[in-house]
Amino acid sequence: MKLNEIADRLQCRLEGDGDIVIQRVAGIDRAGPGDLTFIAHEKYLSRLPSTRASAVIVAPDVAARGAPAALLRTDQPYLAFARAVALLTEPPSTPKGIHPASSIAADVQLGPDVSVGPFATIGAGASIGARTVIHANVAIGAGATVGDDCLVRPHVSIGERVVIGNRVVLQDGAVVGSEGFGFAKQADGTHLKIPQRAGVVIEDDVEIGANSTIDRPAVGETRIGAGTKIDNLVQVAHGVTIGRRVLFAAQVGVAGSAVIDDDVVLAGQVGVANHVHLGKGVVATAQTGIPNSVDPGEYISGYPGIPHRDWLKSSAVYRQLPTLRKRVADLEHRIAELEEKLAGRRTP
Amino acid sequence: MKLNEIADRLQCRLEGDGDIVIQRVAGIDRAGPGDLTFIAHEKYLSRLPSTRASAVIVAPDVAARGAPAALLRTDQPYLAFARAVALLTEPPSTPKGIHPASSIAADVQLGPDVSVGPFATIGAGASIGARTVIHANVAIGAGATVGDDCLVRPHVSIGERVVIGNRVVLQDGAVVGSEGFGFAKQADGTHLKIPQRAGVVIEDDVEIGANSTIDRPAVGETRIGAGTKIDNLVQVAHGVTIGRRVLFAAQVGVAGSAVIDDDVVLAGQVGVANHVHLGKGVVATAQTGIPNSVDPGEYISGYPGIPHRDWLKSSAVYRQLPTLRKRVADLEHRIAELEEKLAGRRTP
Amino acid sequence: MKLNEIADRLQCRLEGDGDIVIQRVAGIDRAGPGDLTFIAHEKYLSRLPSTRASAVIVAPDVAARGAPAALLRTDQPYLAFARAVALLTEPPSTPKGIHPASSIAADVQLGPDVSVGPFATIGAGASIGARTVIHANVAIGAGATVGDDCLVRPHVSIGERVVIGNRVVLQDGAVVGSEGFGFAKQADGTHLKIPQRAGVVIEDDVEIGANSTIDRPAVGETRIGAGTKIDNLVQVAHGVTIGRRVLFAAQVGVAGSAVIDDDVVLAGQVGVANHVHLGKGVVATAQTGIPNSVDPGEYISGYPGIPHRDWLKSSAVYRQLPTLRKRVADLEHRIAELEEKLAGRRTP
Repeated sequence: MKLNEIADRLQCRLEGDGDIVIQRVAGIDRAGPGDLTFIAHEKYLSRLPSTRASAVIVAPDVAARGAPAALLRTDQPYLAFARAVALLTEPPSTPKGIHPASSIAADVQLGPDVSVGPFATIGAGASIGARTVIHANVAIGAGATVGDDCLVRPHVSIGERVVIGNRVVLQDGAVVGSEGFGFAKQADGTHLKIPQRAGVVIEDDVEIGANSTIDRPAVGETRIGAGTKIDNLVQVAHGVTIGRRVLFAAQVGVAGSAVIDDDVVLAGQVGVANHVHLGKGVVATAQTGIPNSVDPGEYISGYPGIPHRDWLKSSAVYRQLPTLRKRVADLEHRIAELEEKLAGRRTP
Repeated sequence: MKLNEIADRLQCRLEGDGDIVIQRVAGIDRAGPGDLTFIAHEKYLSRLPSTRASAVIVAPDVAARGAPAALLRTDQPYLAFARAVALLTEPPSTPKGIHPASSIAADVQLGPDVSVGPFATIGAGASIGARTVIHANVAIGAGATVGDDCLVRPHVSIGERVVIGNRVVLQDGAVVGSEGFGFAKQADGTHLKIPQRAGVVIEDDVEIGANSTIDRPAVGETRIGAGTKIDNLVQVAHGVTIGRRVLFAAQVGVAGSAVIDDDVVLAGQVGVANHVHLGKGVVATAQTGIPNSVDPGEYISGYPGIPHRDWLKSSAVYRQLPTLRKRVADLEHRIAELEEKLAGRRTP
Repeated sequence: MKLNEIADRLQCRLEGDGDIVIQRVAGIDRAGPGDLTFIAHEKYLSRLPSTRASAVIVAPDVAARGAPAALLRTDQPYLAFARAVALLTEPPSTPKGIHPASSIAADVQLGPDVSVGPFATIGAGASIGARTVIHANVAIGAGATVGDDCLVRPHVSIGERVVIGNRVVLQDGAVVGSEGFGFAKQADGTHLKIPQRAGVVIEDDVEIGANSTIDRPAVGETRIGAGTKIDNLVQVAHGVTIGRRVLFAAQVGVAGSAVIDDDVVLAGQVGVANHVHLGKGVVATAQTGIPNSVDPGEYISGYPGIPHRDWLKSSAVYRQLPTLRKRVADLEHRIAELEEKLAGRRTP
């Protein structure tokens, strides 16, 4: 595609030769002739003069001098990059139509243009919305509802009566609606299972990563709000309520009945205890452990989680703890000497 | 179901109108008319006067005054709640009979009333006990044994010759009998695979969560004791021995050859190093890292794990480390001044 | 098999009766008559005199006196053990030929002696190398390439156009080629998906554990180098580059675009932040959090990761923090007293 067409489609201002043909999008370090790349963060600006890319998406104020490539200017270089990738790559192939080697109960409602891959199962009373793609080996339980324009990749498991909105993406092996981990201890020390038969609701535009697990509760529901994105190998326990536009990086775990408000961001391997409430916009850095509720807008780190600035300072001191202990021991020694001297003088 | 029938079935003492019809069980905050709820912990007692539920399961000594609902009294409210859920919800639907689109080797022994869903595979020489339910897309290896009354949900993988007891529940995508992570380093730096072909035994009444993985070892066995419950995304490495009634919350990882005695409880994201021995009844809070063996009955936290009380105190001081360092610096300054003064006096 | 034949095959020097018949390999604690065991580490030497095994693999310099069993001597006891397991156990059974209930696109290239299990799917244009074994319920996307002599266990998902080398092992439920977690935040707070359509390359002799997930990126590639071994439930994000002979234990997570050089070893539950570079041979102990790049050969621990020796010392002091704080408070009290005394003298 010619660069001036790309500039048009991405609504960027072009500086340079619009007749250049762009073949693909690439990162700044790997880009070569025929490639479009981008600089979305100041710290990569130093790489601009040496890029071998044919064109670079940059912010309006980036200095052009020294740039060996055409420039596409926009207020939002990262968004333009995202659109450029969509423009210049092929969408993945999908099953076409209903594969004969699928197992679809007689009363399942299939919207127009639904695709179902081989060895997929859809249980009685389920309904699948228009244009939704069900890949190979997917299992959808009885009475489940999947909305329009969803992408359900191979080996996904959607439990009975689970409700999934529109434009939801479920990556390979994701489980929505497994039974929550709920047991009541009995007098003899054994654990009585509390049946976990209540519902799970996944709202519109949610994405759930590969092999992540979303449990159903005994009572109430588990709910993931619209536009929330969840990475791979994440655990969402029974009865958790997650707001809108939340981001969970990989291997996050959220325990039962926690409430996560809108716009929360949890980095990789963060753990949230049960019944905890994270206020709107809370951000936690990787591996943070969150045993207690957190006020809106807090930015936390550590185990247990504390304000990020405090954690940075404390973890800097942590490294010096052996030195600090030695300094305390030295002080004790010196003060003992002083005390002795003064005591000596007192009794001349 | 009428409340007096529920009271009978749950063996609770009824206070109030037994003719109320109960439709469902709900949490105290969400319960409305027609709902049965419960208070299993003192801290929720304050919500009793404002509940909209029609009936509440409570301990014998809870004051009735102000309760706007009928009461079901029992010594074990949480157990009664568990039973109420079983009583008032529909069990999940299951495959009926042997689906024609399953692949079952000719010599597989199927007990009476076994169900097998579509696209499930059962290898040569395997045996499946009475009334066990095998869901869609399950893969059971050659020579595996699954007991009576088990529930095997979609996409579960049971390896060759794995032995599974009675009443075992395997949630979606759980893997039992993948090959352990065992390699021997060679002179050229490459890793020679130690074949992992020994057995896995899952005893009666075990539950294993969605996408959890239980490895087989090179020698000996991996064993999970009766009544143990394992949550989602848990790793149990090769040769681990887990006792009875153990609880692992989500994302726990136990490294090779560790021994976990009866009644241990590991909260979410806990890690246990290889060859470690956790004594009976050890409890570890979320994210604890356990590099060394722990005596029976210990309650531990932290990384590395230390007694929970100590950890609480240390983590409180951790937050104040920058202040503590400043206090030490101040002391050093003050003591230097004193030393100087005294030195000055000494040489008048 | 007779012990002298085993000694020959393992290239060990035999001390004792070569006519003993060995039935199996066992760990030192469980071994009994007819068993071959091994001692690969000095700390287990004390168990030699009491072993019930018929033969023991040991280093050349281990004292024979007191050993109640025949000895097989070798410079590399652990390697000999690995070979003994291969020699004395049956390889797992595999699907034979192409199962009729698989779904293989018409133009798939299948090498000689490929096996495909029931309900496996292979998309258009894919190619599978000689002698590779595809187990039940595996899904392989369009245009993917799998090399020779690979083992692909049940429920593995291999995405479109993924390239997999020779002798690669993929354990149950592993996902290679799920879409990376890449979103660009828009002005209204919603997250625009950056399509993740670029490639994943798994080089020769790699093993990937059960339910681990390897994402594809938007641009560039995700690559795992030859001979690298990855345990269960590991997350490798989009655009990560992993070198050769790397070891990742279970539940490790590596964030986007990180670069992991050859011979790195990450123990269980370690987390690596995005864009971090780990130099050749870096070792991190369990649960280490790695927010920044690490020089070659470093051995690190902690959260955030610091040199292991420092971490050992700091974590020892951590336990004593309450005491340390008390010591500082005592010093403050004592120095205040001294200051007062000296001030008193100054104004007599």
